[in-house]
Amino acid sequence: MSNKFLSLTNLNFLLFEVHQLERFLKHHYYSHQDKEAVDMMILSAMKIAEKHLHPYLKEMDRQQPELKNGEVISHKQIKKITSVFGESGWYSATISLDEGGLQIPHLVDSAANLIFMAANNGTYGFTGLNAGVSNLILKFASNELKEKFVPNLHIGKWQGTMALTEPQAGSSLGDISSSASRTSEEGEFKIKGQKVFISAGDLQHPENIVHMVLARIEGEPEGTKGISMFIVPKFRFEKTKLVSNDVKTVGIFHKMGQKATPTVHLAFGEKKNCIGYLVGEPNEGLSYMFELMNEARISVGIGAAGMASAAYYMALEYANERSQGRVAEAKDSVDQVSIIDHADVKRMLLKQKSIFEGCMSLILQAAAYADQVKTKEGDLRDHYQLLLDLLTPVVKTYPSEKGIESVSEALQCFGGYGYCEDFSVEQLYRDIRITPIYEGTTGIQSLDLLGRKVLLKNGKGMQLLSKEFEFTLRDASQFEELNEITAIFDAGADELKKVTQHLLAFAMRNKIDRYLADASVYMELFGLVCVGWQWLKQGVVITDACRTNVENLENPFYLGKIQTMKYFFNYEFPKTHSLSSTLKSDHDITLLTDKSWLE
Amino acid sequence: MSNKFLSLTNLNFLLFEVHQLERFLKHHYYSHQDKEAVDMMILSAMKIAEKHLHPYLKEMDRQQPELKNGEVISHKQIKKITSVFGESGWYSATISLDEGGLQIPHLVDSAANLIFMAANNGTYGFTGLNAGVSNLILKFASNELKEKFVPNLHIGKWQGTMALTEPQAGSSLGDISSSASRTSEEGEFKIKGQKVFISAGDLQHPENIVHMVLARIEGEPEGTKGISMFIVPKFRFEKTKLVSNDVKTVGIFHKMGQKATPTVHLAFGEKKNCIGYLVGEPNEGLSYMFELMNEARISVGIGAAGMASAAYYMALEYANERSQGRVAEAKDSVDQVSIIDHADVKRMLLKQKSIFEGCMSLILQAAAYADQVKTKEGDLRDHYQLLLDLLTPVVKTYPSEKGIESVSEALQCFGGYGYCEDFSVEQLYRDIRITPIYEGTTGIQSLDLLGRKVLLKNGKGMQLLSKEFEFTLRDASQFEELNEITAIFDAGADELKKVTQHLLAFAMRNKIDRYLADASVYMELFGLVCVGWQWLKQGVVITDACRTNVENLENPFYLGKIQTMKYFFNYEFPKTHSLSSTLKSDHDITLLTDKSWLE
Repeated sequence: MSNKFLSLTNLNFLLFEVHQLERFLKHHYYSHQDKEAVDMMILSAMKIAEKHLHPYLKEMDRQQPELKNGEVISHKQIKKITSVFGESGWYSATISLDEGGLQIPHLVDSAANLIFMAANNGTYGFTGLNAGVSNLILKFASNELKEKFVPNLHIGKWQGTMALTEPQAGSSLGDISSSASRTSEEGEFKIKGQKVFISAGDLQHPENIVHMVLARIEGEPEGTKGISMFIVPKFRFEKTKLVSNDVKTVGIFHKMGQKATPTVHLAFGEKKNCIGYLVGEPNEGLSYMFELMNEARISVGIGAAGMASAAYYMALEYANERSQGRVAEAKDSVDQVSIIDHADVKRMLLKQKSIFEGCMSLILQAAAYADQVKTKEGDLRDHYQLLLDLLTPVVKTYPSEKGIESVSEALQCFGGYGYCEDFSVEQLYRDIRITPIYEGTTGIQSLDLLGRKVLLKNGKGMQLLSKEFEFTLRDASQFEELNEITAIFDAGADELKKVTQHLLAFAMRNKIDRYLADASVYMELFGLVCVGWQWLKQGVVITDACRTNVENLENPFYLGKIQTMKYFFNYEFPKTHSLSSTLKSDHDITLLTDKSWLE
Repeated sequence: MSNKFLSLTNLNFLLFEVHQLERFLKHHYYSHQDKEAVDMMILSAMKIAEKHLHPYLKEMDRQQPELKNGEVISHKQIKKITSVFGESGWYSATISLDEGGLQIPHLVDSAANLIFMAANNGTYGFTGLNAGVSNLILKFASNELKEKFVPNLHIGKWQGTMALTEPQAGSSLGDISSSASRTSEEGEFKIKGQKVFISAGDLQHPENIVHMVLARIEGEPEGTKGISMFIVPKFRFEKTKLVSNDVKTVGIFHKMGQKATPTVHLAFGEKKNCIGYLVGEPNEGLSYMFELMNEARISVGIGAAGMASAAYYMALEYANERSQGRVAEAKDSVDQVSIIDHADVKRMLLKQKSIFEGCMSLILQAAAYADQVKTKEGDLRDHYQLLLDLLTPVVKTYPSEKGIESVSEALQCFGGYGYCEDFSVEQLYRDIRITPIYEGTTGIQSLDLLGRKVLLKNGKGMQLLSKEFEFTLRDASQFEELNEITAIFDAGADELKKVTQHLLAFAMRNKIDRYLADASVYMELFGLVCVGWQWLKQGVVITDACRTNVENLENPFYLGKIQTMKYFFNYEFPKTHSLSSTLKSDHDITLLTDKSWLE
């Protein structure tokens, strides 16, 4: 198996050159660390990944968790992984120093997560959730609850989960039926209900599991308005002892991939003895959960980009080593060439590289916005929050959808071997397929983008994003080497603007169904333009560096970047033409179809 | 699990209305059967599928074959399936009456195969191969060999395989190193070599396995010119007894999907006691094998379309039954709607329907050409053969590539449940991923299309295909209801012509590498235009039928066809724009990339 799963050269290029991490390190909030400290953190993340995550990728797939006598039997490496994360502080990396965290920039945290998930994407189920859950408690819960739950989550002794979905309420959270009834204790409720698809919902090794549960307090309104959030641990404190809290694992899901993480069906309060601790105010559960959901959505994008990166380096190694066939100009040669010498194999590799490196840059763009939010104030802070909100569903979806294509091309590079278990690329192909589903399907993300984010504050987010495009176009206009690419991007960005106007006309005429009917197609166009933007940004940095130092024109990393950017704009970006043609065509096809027509 | 895997209404529509099967039944070669007989055959295929194939889909995936003490343990239903196929004559369906076959039209045979593979695609590994191998022996081997091997293949007592690939020679067949040395017996050779990825290469139940092996006779030229074909049975006759023929199963491949079929690694002649019987002339092995390969390629397309069909009906059933969320105009309703009421779910269903029904029509188009070849003579026969040759790589590739997308959309309709083993859609997602790989990867098919088929006889095939498009355009021009769609198709067909001219200019300047660099992208455009053509053909038939009988305008089948055609031309077909933009852009991106740029 290839040992490379991610390029540190590329990651550092994106962090320091493209997204200019150092400007944040100058801000007082982050000034307790310098570039050297960040370099050390990235290297330490890489070491953790190489030692504790990557070697277990295959094994954790093969030994899938099972439910035996009501207990989940899970892989023993999970214990090691969670304790290493606890010890090294990654669970609380973006938490403030005051609250016991490392207070590192989101850019660095996202970069580390790219490393971890490229090495072994299954770890997101534990590490990503744990960090998210403790952030959530710190943000909204009482000091008492913080003290009770956060420290053990931060050191990885306990595991956090998010428990939203119910059998009858998946995407439609307003329909959850889990209930909470008041007890005589202030802030303590009896919880009753069923939750499904709970990642890491039960594990063998952590001493406790901390579920963030959405439930409706008795008497509160139906729908999304009456949902509250509770901390419901597997074991609760009675005085100083941990006792069972009536949370039962009643089923385990056997999945196509993502087998490292147990995904379970939980029953809360079957014996009427399950206590939940209210987080924050009643009926505010959904808005709190969206904090975690937004983080989780970005994590899904990170995982998808990470998997595509890992699959790429497997394919690259194979393509260099595997001999097969001859190239056209040396048809009669005795020796076979490495398959990487075939144009079509290079095309498949460039496609992957253009997708996952573009995705990584977009992910780090979102992280940079999160850092702007932390380091700016007033209107400027709001602007960056709006940009982050706008990009969040895109950062989840584009890497997920295109990451699948990318891993599929990696598998294709292996030919028949890619279909077999000997190599891990087939595992990544199975693993990555979850990404357009969990933490909100592509359909849901697309409705969020077009139905909420584009409309937010009278379209202010879209205006700000256009400005961002313009800044990059202005930078690019200084380099005639980029003229052709710049023109292609400019036209695509313009197309997105026109399509948005075209669709908004339906919204203004109150044809909401029609406005939203092609939201998923719009999402594809939107993502494509955003990733094009990130490639142009990279192009500017590279071209500038080559002008500053002509030796860079012989640097394979720089040359590879230029070639991959060209690939993206010649092969991927032209899809803007067909997407905008679809989005602007005058039809109601998906609205008018009678069900019986589909039989 | 949904019991529906294919629509007979659609299949009969394609057979009789679109591809006009009855015109072939009038020809003396096929006149021993009438429409009623064909209807009976299709119904009988459906019964076999429903009784013997479909109920075992999941089970055959779960109980994957294993190699134990040198023996392959495979699913016991295989024995039943092969004997049912033998008894009902499907192994020899297209063989002439004289040679013991049923002499049925290829259209009917392809339709039956669509049924079988939609029900349980794994059966292709047995049934498809058996029919192909016996066809091959009948076509090229001596009468003695025919008598020895064909009858037992036809009744399903023996199993046929194709043994081409070697560890160092996958796509590059000229590099095979298996050898054949003459014995004192005329036509008998000692075989020595290793073959990998042999589907159904060893099975528990058939009494014998008949391998069609490519090997080089000692002293014959290197490369493709010196390859001969041999029949190498697992057990050979010595007088009237079957004795071991020194064919050993040395490994079994554990695959991501397609688990019903054992895929094995075989060693021939390890004890120097493996006899192969020469088929036809020495050094003609590759050209013979291409007969079987061409059949196999079309079978792969059939399998892919079949799987996409099966996944669609699973998704359709789920979408009708699963309640979730509300539609925009009734946001505050108490009851949730079926997810099929959401536009995005309808979009996903229409996408699938537009892909697999379009693919089925293209597959049957190729079958109709095969029937033309059987029933025409002289130039006309050659024309249809050329059209069949041109379409063969497309019929393999488009259903494979787009079938994956289609099954993926089916999985997406299930949300998280689609990712779990409870439903079989995840199995189909794994199963279908082999289709762009085996029997020649998409890259190889694309080189065949652009590098051979387009150039054949000075581009005569392309001219004939353009004529075929024109016939359909002429038919469509009679119906103003089709004006918009007709114009879209016309523009796409024209784009294909222009792109072909653009690329041919490279070939004429002897820039063969550049000519072929984007063959896979060309293939995608070519496939899209061909399937567009098939949708327009269907549109003509439907529109005509609605004019003839206005009641058809209330028939859900007809309305669904019209809507699906509109979907195809508004959502899928516009991809011609981006593909042609990529193909016409002036670059050498995939040729100029230095390997080190990809690190």
